[in-house]
Amino acid sequence: MNDARRYCALPSPFAMKRGGALHGARVAYETWGTLNAARDNAVLILTGLSPSAHVASSADDPSPGWWEAMLGPGKAIDSDRWFVICVNSLGSDKGSTCPASIDPATGQPYRLTFPELALEDVANAAHEVVRQLGIERLACLIGCSMGGMSALAYMLLHPGSVRAHISVDTAPQAQPFAIAIRSLQREAIRLDPDWRGGQYDIHAKEGGTYPDMGMSIARKLGVITYRSAMEWNGRFARIRLDPEQREEQPFGVEFQVESYLQGHAERFVRTFDPNSYLYLSRASDWFDVAEYGGGSVREGLKRIHIERAMVIGVSTDILFPLEQQEQIADGLRDAGAAVEFVALDSPQGHDAFLVDIANYSPAIGGFLQRL
Amino acid sequence: MNDARRYCALPSPFAMKRGGALHGARVAYETWGTLNAARDNAVLILTGLSPSAHVASSADDPSPGWWEAMLGPGKAIDSDRWFVICVNSLGSDKGSTCPASIDPATGQPYRLTFPELALEDVANAAHEVVRQLGIERLACLIGCSMGGMSALAYMLLHPGSVRAHISVDTAPQAQPFAIAIRSLQREAIRLDPDWRGGQYDIHAKEGGTYPDMGMSIARKLGVITYRSAMEWNGRFARIRLDPEQREEQPFGVEFQVESYLQGHAERFVRTFDPNSYLYLSRASDWFDVAEYGGGSVREGLKRIHIERAMVIGVSTDILFPLEQQEQIADGLRDAGAAVEFVALDSPQGHDAFLVDIANYSPAIGGFLQRL
Repeated sequence: MNDARRYCALPSPFAMKRGGALHGARVAYETWGTLNAARDNAVLILTGLSPSAHVASSADDPSPGWWEAMLGPGKAIDSDRWFVICVNSLGSDKGSTCPASIDPATGQPYRLTFPELALEDVANAAHEVVRQLGIERLACLIGCSMGGMSALAYMLLHPGSVRAHISVDTAPQAQPFAIAIRSLQREAIRLDPDWRGGQYDIHAKEGGTYPDMGMSIARKLGVITYRSAMEWNGRFARIRLDPEQREEQPFGVEFQVESYLQGHAERFVRTFDPNSYLYLSRASDWFDVAEYGGGSVREGLKRIHIERAMVIGVSTDILFPLEQQEQIADGLRDAGAAVEFVALDSPQGHDAFLVDIANYSPAIGGFLQRL
Repeated sequence: MNDARRYCALPSPFAMKRGGALHGARVAYETWGTLNAARDNAVLILTGLSPSAHVASSADDPSPGWWEAMLGPGKAIDSDRWFVICVNSLGSDKGSTCPASIDPATGQPYRLTFPELALEDVANAAHEVVRQLGIERLACLIGCSMGGMSALAYMLLHPGSVRAHISVDTAPQAQPFAIAIRSLQREAIRLDPDWRGGQYDIHAKEGGTYPDMGMSIARKLGVITYRSAMEWNGRFARIRLDPEQREEQPFGVEFQVESYLQGHAERFVRTFDPNSYLYLSRASDWFDVAEYGGGSVREGLKRIHIERAMVIGVSTDILFPLEQQEQIADGLRDAGAAVEFVALDSPQGHDAFLVDIANYSPAIGGFLQRL
């Protein structure tokens, strides 16, 4: 397992946007397919907050990835044609240097001494992978959710490094509703007494001192806002658990939708480092294309010069509403790109890109084929 | 203060829908205006989860109420014409018997020994107030939010007791999205170590053992889902606090929207009994008109026989979506009532009825005038 994972050492020191620097840092990545001689068939994928770089299975790691249906030979992101790279975000604990990593200066985990993280740092680290692979210009940069914001940062900070872009369920800046949700997720973790100001037992897979409660609440709130009320009406309605499946404690789980959230939380709580979660979550709130346009999102986007783009959004997404995808599409078009805007009515909300493969696959596959 | 508050002793024992009974229970209420000789000018208001019976100021209590702009002489709910009653929900700690009340059998607060609470119990307790005031039939029953569900229960359980009904931002049953939100609010309280299985210091206004963290998260999640993303885009955008207003702790409040939520939470945490919150929240999840219609909401609503109704909903309400108000309107119409359905585009979300007085006042006032 993880035989597909590669590591890229970042320049040391690696200066961070908001100050400070990392020493001896690295990011994890995986690749699929083969880089051609002209080095012009590379596709880079930047991920949402929690996924690893394991987008799809490969000979080196046959376990299914988080976008398994989308990437592989003959699939929408066709690894027979493209050399596909996915970089685990700097600050994420899926192999990249993050707050749970050892600070070489102290021999102890960074925890909250990790420098402030911005999505610009995530973008710069990903760009370093691409550079070290000898690729001057990506054929396509794909960014999903938080990764879509990192992708915008990538194109703003590295002009000329991208030919085409696919923007998936993301935003040019966080709106107050999304900030409120993420702030509350962070608060649930911070207020958990077992967070202990970041000093919990980092590697405890069970037991120990660990902010299970805060992580569970954060994850459930995440799942609630990643899906949609419409989908759940059809999926869960008011179906109750069988009496023997219910919890004994007062006010315990009774409806199927509660049990679904519980399952999501249990799978997440000990598999994502809480401090890393806090850093990446805050980075999402901070990101703002308008910083590059004198306070205007439109002007910021106009500084991105690429040939073509596809911008995909979903009408049921409450975290990254469709108007924000349209804003990206309009801005990139203003900047001179040929832009296809795809507004989907998938019922699954923000997570549609992971679930509604029937719509996302032809859209993304079609765009890549036409490149 | 609270000189306007009256109490109504409930029959003892007062049998609860899901089993058990209360002994020596009471509910608090307030009234405005004068009951006429024919006793046919009474309007009853049933409230959302957290408000008290203090809808508006009066000679006995000049402090502003939670719907101050709507109720009073010459206002939409005109106390010169109507005798208006508002009952604090059974199970709420604003004067009615609730989990924080003393159980006469033990001399100790009920806490979690309070019997399971359903909105049908809330409705029956309110009906008892009306009965004891010598009113056989309400001219109008108004229910807002949770109170709208209690109102549906009232009309289902007491046929012939209501002439006209105003349904405000409510639902005939909880959908899974609303259940998920409320379940998470309850979980935040339950998982707070200071909840102590309901054994916190009930009356501590500061200090003591009290689930501040859980109540704060629950309230913030409430406020997030009571408002709308659209409103917040205009109101908060990405405005940051001045540096001196920011919290010192890591990941502390930085954006105005976070500070707004913090203010709401601070005002709420110690002013609403956490166990009572849990009981009322769960009662909202349980309520289902379909129970009265052999599994069908439509058939359940068809059992409500009133002359006229106005059903008001808001397109930006994510907790009680407009389709659910339409369902109520259709069902009451099927049952033979003359129904006016008012779909508003107020940007304020579920809370619009408290804020968008410019739209709610003429709608409700007009309906009442035409009675």
